[in-house]
Amino acid sequence: MKIIQPSFKILTPIDRNKVLEHLEICGRTCYKSEDRITKESAPKFVKMLNNKGHHAMLEFFDITIRFIHNRGFTHEMVRHRLCNFAQESTRYCDYKGELTVIEPWWTDPGNYEIWRTQMKHCEWAYQVLREKGLSPQAARGVLPLDVKTEICVKANLREWMHIFDLRCSEAAHPDMRRIMIPLREELKVELLEIF
Amino acid sequence: MKIIQPSFKILTPIDRNKVLEHLEICGRTCYKSEDRITKESAPKFVKMLNNKGHHAMLEFFDITIRFIHNRGFTHEMVRHRLCNFAQESTRYCDYKGELTVIEPWWTDPGNYEIWRTQMKHCEWAYQVLREKGLSPQAARGVLPLDVKTEICVKANLREWMHIFDLRCSEAAHPDMRRIMIPLREELKVELLEIF
Amino acid sequence: MKIIQPSFKILTPIDRNKVLEHLEICGRTCYKSEDRITKESAPKFVKMLNNKGHHAMLEFFDITIRFIHNRGFTHEMVRHRLCNFAQESTRYCDYKGELTVIEPWWTDPGNYEIWRTQMKHCEWAYQVLREKGLSPQAARGVLPLDVKTEICVKANLREWMHIFDLRCSEAAHPDMRRIMIPLREELKVELLEIF
Amino acid sequence: MKIIQPSFKILTPIDRNKVLEHLEICGRTCYKSEDRITKESAPKFVKMLNNKGHHAMLEFFDITIRFIHNRGFTHEMVRHRLCNFAQESTRYCDYKGELTVIEPWWTDPGNYEIWRTQMKHCEWAYQVLREKGLSPQAARGVLPLDVKTEICVKANLREWMHIFDLRCSEAAHPDMRRIMIPLREELKVELLEIF
Repeated sequence: MKIIQPSFKILTPIDRNKVLEHLEICGRTCYKSEDRITKESAPKFVKMLNNKGHHAMLEFFDITIRFIHNRGFTHEMVRHRLCNFAQESTRYCDYKGELTVIEPWWTDPGNYEIWRTQMKHCEWAYQVLREKGLSPQAARGVLPLDVKTEICVKANLREWMHIFDLRCSEAAHPDMRRIMIPLREELKVELLEIF
Repeated sequence: MKIIQPSFKILTPIDRNKVLEHLEICGRTCYKSEDRITKESAPKFVKMLNNKGHHAMLEFFDITIRFIHNRGFTHEMVRHRLCNFAQESTRYCDYKGELTVIEPWWTDPGNYEIWRTQMKHCEWAYQVLREKGLSPQAARGVLPLDVKTEICVKANLREWMHIFDLRCSEAAHPDMRRIMIPLREELKVELLEIF
Repeated sequence: MKIIQPSFKILTPIDRNKVLEHLEICGRTCYKSEDRITKESAPKFVKMLNNKGHHAMLEFFDITIRFIHNRGFTHEMVRHRLCNFAQESTRYCDYKGELTVIEPWWTDPGNYEIWRTQMKHCEWAYQVLREKGLSPQAARGVLPLDVKTEICVKANLREWMHIFDLRCSEAAHPDMRRIMIPLREELKVELLEIF
Repeated sequence: MKIIQPSFKILTPIDRNKVLEHLEICGRTCYKSEDRITKESAPKFVKMLNNKGHHAMLEFFDITIRFIHNRGFTHEMVRHRLCNFAQESTRYCDYKGELTVIEPWWTDPGNYEIWRTQMKHCEWAYQVLREKGLSPQAARGVLPLDVKTEICVKANLREWMHIFDLRCSEAAHPDMRRIMIPLREELKVELLEIF
């Protein structure tokens, strides 16, 4: 059994200038004010859109993130219905052999041992069911919510703003917060006007 | 531990005549042919829409279904992004005490015993983690994909048609087919023109 | 030429008790608190959902409205992408004969006469183009934005809340406000907890 | 008055290799078959996705197009609810001065003159109403459907496929076909596997 930390990777190359310029070109279509575009106008224009709540323009750039996390996380994630998803399939992927699970966000030595033993049980049960002839899609029922899964999530900037609002807040599940807060910080570096 | 069969309940009362008449009223707005409405015109008009592929009109009636099934099923279900969902929360519901799980679709005495024992392990591990102070949202990681969950799904008729196309087909997961095929049959009784 | 006022008609019968009870049933699925349902619990439960911002539950009831208005109005309306639409077609409907246009929201005798004369020109030009052999879909280009059109719009309660927020506000177009404010008032009578 | 042809511009730079590689990376997440990625594997993999109908993966790349066309065109365009839109506003843009209109798709000298005269009437009426104090959002009602407008439309590859299916077909409006067919041809040059 392998216990790993959740992680993310930004799959979309973000060229700050190109992104802001693209948003400006789309946004100025509404006002036919393209003549006001200068070399420095984009960041100010996008900040203005953002402040005025004209968020529809932020839909014109998308970012794809690959998350490696547990299925509790992805079950919450896929409820954001405006995103696009590509997720590791429990029908076509085989979890036979070493099972990978996600380290819990809580730390407590006693409970950790119980959790760890239970993960081992899952690994063993899946293994045996596969060896005795069940297909992956039949054996998947014994997998725990903490099994590792991968998901690519594409969303536009407006939707990422909304996701961060919900999922970085104190009301969010700790499994969300521990991955969404660092992601937002990393995106802020390039796109401060937005996040 | 309690092992139950998956099930569904149609929460929307379906008055066949009213549904077809509503679709007709909306559909005839496009052609301004309301003068052709008679007492018997609705079923024929809706059948015509359906045959011609003018499916947008079928979006004007929604049906809500409550499913009781496992989390493998709901993780597939919530990928239908045009639906509305209300699902039993693993954060706010407590699975302490007797755990309910969904009977597998496959039958094989030997494998069934392994599966059953593993479900018992899950029940026990969740129980102990809760007793030792973990909250439901912390303990949920040890729950199996086969744990029972409930979900209300609302979709319009066009989307249900699409869902049945995908989820009753032979390529679908058996956990989908065993619940979607009987659901479609039941809806057909009232809405034969559509399903 | 016929000049009419914009208007709306609520096509969905709204039975206040049934609506609130349906929302309660769906909402309580999340908490598995169905045992707390009483004869009087629904209004309070829905109000609580609303106050707590758990708006996803308000997606479980839809209302269809038929609007009769101009094409300036409908071009704004169809930008609400979560709605369902059925609109009078400029391809399949024929505007030959008497043209119906929507009375402007502004009143100013001098300007009104210019506007009225221009509407007459449109009526005349469409008429002649049709008589000389153009099809409706070819002649439609001379129709004015103020031509009367009909549209059925279905949205769930959450989306209607959002539409009213945007379209009843002082920043909205007067053609929006003069129809959306009375619509909201009428819906409030039945569904005060929501609007 | 200025009469122009409709036109489009592809605003998203399309680097064929990068697009296909991005789709492959996302697509292989489902099967965890990233080890099969080679320098030449992407086009074949994407073609396979397309043939198998696994179209959800084509949602991972978006293209933004700016169209210059009439408001008949855009009213049809904005009905594609999965797209993102930024359109020239009839509230904030002023059509005073020279009016730009879109050349009709039909050619017939006699009818053309009637159409042209009617466009002149519109230009004149808008002009006078503006000079006599009406704001753009009040005067817009006299604009014809054939007035020139600009719209930026962003959609993912799956949605563009769907749009082309509907809008290049013989059942589509000629104003759609005369712009969508050349657009599809141009996109095909880079993305033959998809379109």
